Amino acid sequence: MVKVNGNYKSLKQNYLFANIAKKLSDYVEANPTAKIIKMGIGDVTQPLPKVVIDALVNASKEMGVKETFRGYAPDEQGYAFLKSKIADYYKNNSNVELSDREIFVSDGAKSDVANFTDLFSNDNTIIIPDPVYPVYMDSNLMLGRKIQLINGNDINGFLPMPTENLDGDIIYLCSPNNPTGAVYTKEQLQQWVDFAIDHNAIILFDAAYEAFIADPDLPRSIYEIPNAKKCAVEFCSLSKTAGFTGTRCGYTIVPESLMADGESLNKMWMRRQTTKFNGTAYIIQRAAEAVFTDEGLKACRTIIDYYRANAKIMTDTMSKLRIWHTGGFNSPYVWIKCGMDSWEYFDALLNDINVVGTPGSGFGRCGAGYFRLTAFNTTENTIEAMDRFSKLFK
Amino acid sequence: MVKVNGNYKSLKQNYLFANIAKKLSDYVEANPTAKIIKMGIGDVTQPLPKVVIDALVNASKEMGVKETFRGYAPDEQGYAFLKSKIADYYKNNSNVELSDREIFVSDGAKSDVANFTDLFSNDNTIIIPDPVYPVYMDSNLMLGRKIQLINGNDINGFLPMPTENLDGDIIYLCSPNNPTGAVYTKEQLQQWVDFAIDHNAIILFDAAYEAFIADPDLPRSIYEIPNAKKCAVEFCSLSKTAGFTGTRCGYTIVPESLMADGESLNKMWMRRQTTKFNGTAYIIQRAAEAVFTDEGLKACRTIIDYYRANAKIMTDTMSKLRIWHTGGFNSPYVWIKCGMDSWEYFDALLNDINVVGTPGSGFGRCGAGYFRLTAFNTTENTIEAMDRFSKLFK
Repeated sequence: MVKVNGNYKSLKQNYLFANIAKKLSDYVEANPTAKIIKMGIGDVTQPLPKVVIDALVNASKEMGVKETFRGYAPDEQGYAFLKSKIADYYKNNSNVELSDREIFVSDGAKSDVANFTDLFSNDNTIIIPDPVYPVYMDSNLMLGRKIQLINGNDINGFLPMPTENLDGDIIYLCSPNNPTGAVYTKEQLQQWVDFAIDHNAIILFDAAYEAFIADPDLPRSIYEIPNAKKCAVEFCSLSKTAGFTGTRCGYTIVPESLMADGESLNKMWMRRQTTKFNGTAYIIQRAAEAVFTDEGLKACRTIIDYYRANAKIMTDTMSKLRIWHTGGFNSPYVWIKCGMDSWEYFDALLNDINVVGTPGSGFGRCGAGYFRLTAFNTTENTIEAMDRFSKLFK
Repeated sequence: MVKVNGNYKSLKQNYLFANIAKKLSDYVEANPTAKIIKMGIGDVTQPLPKVVIDALVNASKEMGVKETFRGYAPDEQGYAFLKSKIADYYKNNSNVELSDREIFVSDGAKSDVANFTDLFSNDNTIIIPDPVYPVYMDSNLMLGRKIQLINGNDINGFLPMPTENLDGDIIYLCSPNNPTGAVYTKEQLQQWVDFAIDHNAIILFDAAYEAFIADPDLPRSIYEIPNAKKCAVEFCSLSKTAGFTGTRCGYTIVPESLMADGESLNKMWMRRQTTKFNGTAYIIQRAAEAVFTDEGLKACRTIIDYYRANAKIMTDTMSKLRIWHTGGFNSPYVWIKCGMDSWEYFDALLNDINVVGTPGSGFGRCGAGYFRLTAFNTTENTIEAMDRFSKLFK
């Protein structure tokens, strides 16, 4: 008789966005003329740059001609034309040298972050910051693993650090953080790298929001930290960098020098991916290549600056209203303290000023009493939403 | 200290295609003027139909305009426009009714076949035919599971059937089979469904090659068999149906009525996919939609007929030469008996007639002494290769 993976039974259903959608549709039904401003979901809204569209169109046309048609990629982990562009990006942004063999192209950071856990024994303790992107927790709960939460709060600025008593084998870090927008400094990441090396632990570093970092002193890759190649894997994606949330392309860096338990994680990930994944579509890889051209990067920078200008409008408003907040400057997320239950705050904003955000409690226990706003709406709507905030909280 | 998944150590490296590539490049280096005909790798060669290219181009252009830009899909398991087309395809081809909630769109059947195992406990016995697509075996070995091989041979036509003594919990079936091209009849699949229901087992049915079935009496979906919705999951893909090996789109059917160990596999797969996958690119889903239009299906049919005509040239030759073989008529693969070691046969074909195929021993113990030829080359090359065969074996 077939037996299922019993760990799935212990997973909580995450109704966060479903609950938000329900509350919103109920409100709209009762108030059909309300001018709702959505600052909830972390999805981009600006179209892809022309250089990327041109690459998509050209590659699509190639697929219709026998001489230029592409079947299975010669290297399932990514075409050389894209991997060399990603290596250049690391070199230029972070002064980090990567070989082609250290870069694995995929359909997105979510898949890779969640699947990378396959490489480890279930007999590990997993260190996860709270609040955080729920995928880290759920993908480990699916394997029945022991999880050690480390608390983010207004005292540590939602940047929990290793303490003397902390112990664990695999550490998730997300910087700039989703949902809080907080960014670790180099000194802070150095402490984490030192901790990992001392404990023979591995850091799984989620850099999905690195392109939002404006402060040149902040690290955009964990490999800017000495010794990180000996203890860290890095996940990144074009979703937020280049508006690829619906186009799907990510990349994972697994250094060749990275050993765990006497094994090469690079070779193990290669084995996992060649067995359980068949590569990213050729046309999508051509689009990703276009992102990393000078023209593509410039266009993406313009879009990110647009979102970041929205974030500044938001943080300026919060500062003026003396509402405790973090994020914003180096992140599309602004994380604010509610002074009440997160869901009550959600209801108040929806009912009183028709602004929709995301209750922080949906991202973990330590998110309770906090609230996430995103900078992905239009500038006009962002200004209007902040005006309404100012009137409500003045 | 971090501990890795020790099961990876027990995985054999599969050097099959690497070995073939090495032998081929050595031969070409020594014989630079040889006119090699490749009938080895199972990859398509004909370009995508115009209706699919048009869909790709149009969807790509939509991504460049604010009003039509798409971010995260509203349903990570596939856009409604594609799922309804897949449901129609099942209705028209197999008279099988599927609800939208039973269809999960992905980046390909390989990912889904390999990831679906996540839903089961490691305490299951896995029944796998030999020879077969190596992903079934490897994805279960990665979890340390007990595997029960069932033997294909020239007596059962490489279609192993359940026996009285057979016991197991999860059964992989691939029909039309990779690598043998053999296809189960409805009566045979009925025996497997009956076995699964008797044993409270689950069938994981790989239908990746269903579009090659020409014989109207052969089942193209396991759901053509009564009660299959109570015991089977089906994996399919556009890779071979529509030449999507480099475009990446597949779909998995998990019936809502399918229970395992008291749990809904449909709900479990939904939980797995929403946690560990972020959907297939919008433009790829639009291309897949175009495949399932009347024009798209007609164009794909023409391409498949082209490959199938090649297969007929091959099987006619083998019959004339009295070489035992299976596959071909309902499959792009022709599986022939070597009368010698598979690798010796490979060397002989390469050296004597400059034809490259795939040694059957690469697909499992029972593949030893057999050889796979594929029908994906041009008709001219297929005719030429068979002429060379005829001269060699006459």
